[in-house]
Amino acid sequence: MPTSENGSPPVYREIAEELRGQIRSGRYADGDRLPGENTLMERHGVARATARQALSVLINEGLAVAVRGSGIYVRAFRPLRRHGARRLSRDLWGNGRAIWQTDSDTRGYEVEGLVIDEIVPEGHVLRALELGEGTTVVRRSRRYLVDGRPVQSAVSHLSPQLWAGREDSPAAHRVRAPDSGPGGIYARLAELGHAPAHFTEEIRVRMPTPEETQELALSPGTPVLEVARTALTADHRPVEFNEITMDGSAYVLQYDFDA
Amino acid sequence: MPTSENGSPPVYREIAEELRGQIRSGRYADGDRLPGENTLMERHGVARATARQALSVLINEGLAVAVRGSGIYVRAFRPLRRHGARRLSRDLWGNGRAIWQTDSDTRGYEVEGLVIDEIVPEGHVLRALELGEGTTVVRRSRRYLVDGRPVQSAVSHLSPQLWAGREDSPAAHRVRAPDSGPGGIYARLAELGHAPAHFTEEIRVRMPTPEETQELALSPGTPVLEVARTALTADHRPVEFNEITMDGSAYVLQYDFDA
Repeated sequence: MPTSENGSPPVYREIAEELRGQIRSGRYADGDRLPGENTLMERHGVARATARQALSVLINEGLAVAVRGSGIYVRAFRPLRRHGARRLSRDLWGNGRAIWQTDSDTRGYEVEGLVIDEIVPEGHVLRALELGEGTTVVRRSRRYLVDGRPVQSAVSHLSPQLWAGREDSPAAHRVRAPDSGPGGIYARLAELGHAPAHFTEEIRVRMPTPEETQELALSPGTPVLEVARTALTADHRPVEFNEITMDGSAYVLQYDFDA
Repeated sequence: MPTSENGSPPVYREIAEELRGQIRSGRYADGDRLPGENTLMERHGVARATARQALSVLINEGLAVAVRGSGIYVRAFRPLRRHGARRLSRDLWGNGRAIWQTDSDTRGYEVEGLVIDEIVPEGHVLRALELGEGTTVVRRSRRYLVDGRPVQSAVSHLSPQLWAGREDSPAAHRVRAPDSGPGGIYARLAELGHAPAHFTEEIRVRMPTPEETQELALSPGTPVLEVARTALTADHRPVEFNEITMDGSAYVLQYDFDA
């Protein structure tokens, strides 16, 4: 930590640390307004620049959000819980083991901006699907909202080889239709003889691109979670590759597994 | 995205977008030096402030790192792959399904700064371990380095109730000793009759605190991954709770599971 001349942390850090502690302890709860620059100046006897710097530390850490013309607020959105390994019963694991409070059960997703097209995807998508260079795939892109707030975008890729010779079957139509039918794409893949049996998810985290900041309406100091999910059949053929980009402040990912 | 007066993106965004594309395509590889301010000024006919702004976009996204007195470089560290569900064989899953290139097999961890103490932990730790308020636990804290670079810190908590009545057994000594013995803490828990059989991992992402920035030597624009891991016995008693904080740029987390 940078220190001031006398070896102690700079004052703005101390003020930030105090506010951080008060947020963590619940003294300031989700959605509460934090003390403004004037209050901090008075309370700590510091200049406006120092007060501002203290608040921007909290904004950059993603603990607080600035609302233009109103003030600085504790982040209000309670994260969604996303269970990776759905096979394992939530009854056994979920409730007792949940460390971070989330809200996944009470709020529904809204899907927006579904686009279905055929493209030649980037190399890593073809490699994930074990397809040769230049192969065309069906791509389904959409955005998910919760309480009107965009929380993730997902881009799913399927090889047309999965319905080769059965192009006119209802399942082959449904995987390319806006409404993929009951049980979704995985149920249609099962009807086509390619039921997913295994999944691999790879998780990375990074700061968003300007496009993602716009698409997910991210506030400053918000990283994104990238989940690359491959669905495989019982004999380990990849049948779907899904690239999911999540607002990092909106999710807790949970995985349950055996020793 | 903000636009300039004529409706197109501001020039610094266009320059950043061009550089971003060149990093993604491999034109600039890991560790390469990016064109500096002078080069960008000349190449694009822009002011120094614009060139600087373009480069800081890439730094804030975590794609590039500034080295004082030298220049701006593409991030060089290849992420480590961390397999959550170790039960599932890497032979079946790992290699074929790896989307992001990583380096987990060739580099070893170095452990630093191990501290073992007894504390009354915060409420969420006690809840995870199903212990009452005010209970004392053994805490093992350490930092992990790869190639001399700090990549994660881990703070593990164990209840002394696990060795109640067997305080003088070798296993009970080892769980509180710097060298926990072959197979580590989980092997000792097994010897004490509390073999971990299930794990729950919860993953969150956020910007680091100033302390974490220092402890993990994080560059600007680097979020941290927080993994809260609970180890449970076959009858679902929690026996260990581990809070792991990772340099978000240093890891790809992988989870394999069945449908």
